[in-house]
Amino acid sequence: MNSCYYKDFPALCALDGEPGCTPPSLAYLDNAATTHKPSAVLETVEGYYRDCNANPYRGVYRTSAASTRLYEGSRNIVADFVGADASEIVFTRNATEALNLVAVCYALERLSEGDEIALPISEHHSNLVVWQRVCEKTGAKLVFLYPDENGRLRDGEMEDKIGPATKLVAIAHISNVLGTVFPIEKITALAHSMGAVVVLDCTQGVAHRPLDVRKLDVDFAAFSGHKMYGPMGIGVLYAKADLLESMPPFLLGGEMIDTVQDLHSTFESGPKRFEAGTPNVAGAVGLAAAIDYLNRIGFEEIEEIERSLTTRLLDGMRSIDSVRIYGNPYATLDRSGVVAFGVVGTHPQDIALVLDARNIAIRSGSHCAQPLHRRLGIEMSCRVSPCFYNTPEQIDRFLDAVGEARRTISRRIMSVFP
Amino acid sequence: MNSCYYKDFPALCALDGEPGCTPPSLAYLDNAATTHKPSAVLETVEGYYRDCNANPYRGVYRTSAASTRLYEGSRNIVADFVGADASEIVFTRNATEALNLVAVCYALERLSEGDEIALPISEHHSNLVVWQRVCEKTGAKLVFLYPDENGRLRDGEMEDKIGPATKLVAIAHISNVLGTVFPIEKITALAHSMGAVVVLDCTQGVAHRPLDVRKLDVDFAAFSGHKMYGPMGIGVLYAKADLLESMPPFLLGGEMIDTVQDLHSTFESGPKRFEAGTPNVAGAVGLAAAIDYLNRIGFEEIEEIERSLTTRLLDGMRSIDSVRIYGNPYATLDRSGVVAFGVVGTHPQDIALVLDARNIAIRSGSHCAQPLHRRLGIEMSCRVSPCFYNTPEQIDRFLDAVGEARRTISRRIMSVFP
Repeated sequence: MNSCYYKDFPALCALDGEPGCTPPSLAYLDNAATTHKPSAVLETVEGYYRDCNANPYRGVYRTSAASTRLYEGSRNIVADFVGADASEIVFTRNATEALNLVAVCYALERLSEGDEIALPISEHHSNLVVWQRVCEKTGAKLVFLYPDENGRLRDGEMEDKIGPATKLVAIAHISNVLGTVFPIEKITALAHSMGAVVVLDCTQGVAHRPLDVRKLDVDFAAFSGHKMYGPMGIGVLYAKADLLESMPPFLLGGEMIDTVQDLHSTFESGPKRFEAGTPNVAGAVGLAAAIDYLNRIGFEEIEEIERSLTTRLLDGMRSIDSVRIYGNPYATLDRSGVVAFGVVGTHPQDIALVLDARNIAIRSGSHCAQPLHRRLGIEMSCRVSPCFYNTPEQIDRFLDAVGEARRTISRRIMSVFP
Repeated sequence: MNSCYYKDFPALCALDGEPGCTPPSLAYLDNAATTHKPSAVLETVEGYYRDCNANPYRGVYRTSAASTRLYEGSRNIVADFVGADASEIVFTRNATEALNLVAVCYALERLSEGDEIALPISEHHSNLVVWQRVCEKTGAKLVFLYPDENGRLRDGEMEDKIGPATKLVAIAHISNVLGTVFPIEKITALAHSMGAVVVLDCTQGVAHRPLDVRKLDVDFAAFSGHKMYGPMGIGVLYAKADLLESMPPFLLGGEMIDTVQDLHSTFESGPKRFEAGTPNVAGAVGLAAAIDYLNRIGFEEIEEIERSLTTRLLDGMRSIDSVRIYGNPYATLDRSGVVAFGVVGTHPQDIALVLDARNIAIRSGSHCAQPLHRRLGIEMSCRVSPCFYNTPEQIDRFLDAVGEARRTISRRIMSVFP
């Protein structure tokens, strides 16, 4: 299997000069932070601005009507992609806004003292800090699940901590640090048996394996376009229709109102109630184009490539003595290609800088997960996160560079402090 | 003076087949709803995704560092454009989000029973409904100013209604229906003398005349990128530095935190505190490119073209018997090119449809200003809003079409009910 998908991505070919199946110069391995955009997405966005640009809903003229159709058509495409109905899909700016929306319009309205919110300590700040505020405002309590050394949730702990007091479980589909694919169906069944709702942050999952919100039976799900080959500035909230209908509006303004009297207003029903002001139509059609692109390749192919790359990556990393992998070090089915690691005796930032000098892009930092890093006894880590447009050769370049990195950094330190 | 600027806008040339100074087929006269985007903006956005795409702040590798520089550089460009400091510029999704931010993080925190919010009845829903909610939650009261038949605020009324109980004045720089340029400096002086802050919605103004937030001395200002030749999905809040520093965060998540403990967090200072999650870098650099484009043309030129078009438009409209203009019917200095109107004996939607058949795009509806329309004794109106890329020939086509519209609609009705 020889991935040539990078050729669909101008950013990954720009340095090559000419197309071809040789590995591109840039080994972009920070796909958990943001992905590149295929030509199909860039052309769709530009084509929208060129051919249809108008404010949707608001005009009867043809480009406005076309904008409305494209925007609502994008909603349908997103809904199909995750197994939902279009009436359950709200366009937001990003996953963060989607999670804030649930916190403000659902949790703040329903929770009170004595209630509990359960979540893994590994959650991204966006799926943690909002619940901290809900607890501060309502008197509810955060209850943490602590993944084991392989990044997995423990059966007993889940059953201990998700109980009658639990009103909400917030969890990532795939951890953005540990790479763990959490057992969402199991958690949803447990949460629902206790009367709690489940808020899924599927930002790290939605571009890498099929998502079926009905099958997982989650109540809310949030994700960002820019991490699934779509544009920045567009995100999605899925909410079960009855929950969405029961929630008060979030931001107020044009398009989300029904009637506006001088002193009070009534609001739209459905997703529009949560989309105040001119929507990002170009973002929505760009996201729909990204989904269309993924569908054309198919998740069978995407998963096969990514599993193969992850196996190569983890096999190689395990064979480097100084590398410590956080999370499951084997490419099992409940593991994605997101791999956090450290190199003994070096600072994660230095590793990332040494790799950058070889045009290999990885992330270093706390990856918006400070509590997890504290739990791991570290301040920061490196993170490598390949996806289907990466090549085996890029994985090898990464492994070579990491193997070299410790020596390079030692030499540099020696030259400064001889 | 012969405007050829439309040639910079692919959407306005697409139907022409080839470039040239002949008027383009599409007479897009709904610029108050959204504007088209010049090639410079589209190319900048695409170029960002091709050459620099990365999550800013979060990586040490070169494209992430470049993304940070471009995003912060865009903030500087926006700040210069409105006479502010970069530390006072928050990127939002649109003007609506910016106004919600002020309502939640400033007004909800400070206002209480007995306090008043003063605003013209002509405000866009986005600058009205947020204050309705603040009043519902705090017990404060809305106090309306009623523009006269020429769309102007009355001196005596301003002084009557902005008094010691006023804590906030919310007002558009330019009305999105009446086209009135409100006397902001005067209102700011009056409001400040009473201890009130001024929230300026400059969405309709910022693309058409220079904005200097220091000179106007407003405390907050909000605008959207897509109405000033920039992309959708990006907006701006200006807030005086000391006010911004004193406000609690709005949305919570990545990038806006300082440290995250398990149960509580501390937050960034400055604009970043209000920008949760991955920002829309492509949107910000696109907005900066739009500003750069406007700066190259210069407001002297833009204002001259738009004044000339508005004069031609209003002169022509006044000479059509059946047309009724809402707001000042003369192209005076306190009037922009936004013109709301009705045609006696016809429905505004029908007028817009008849014009669309001639490829002339205007808006019909309540323009997100239901209370104003109620005050005017109508449910809807038509609105024409030229800008500097429109041509005198397009204005003439519009005038011809409106002159014909009543007869066309009458004939159609006669053919249905002969």
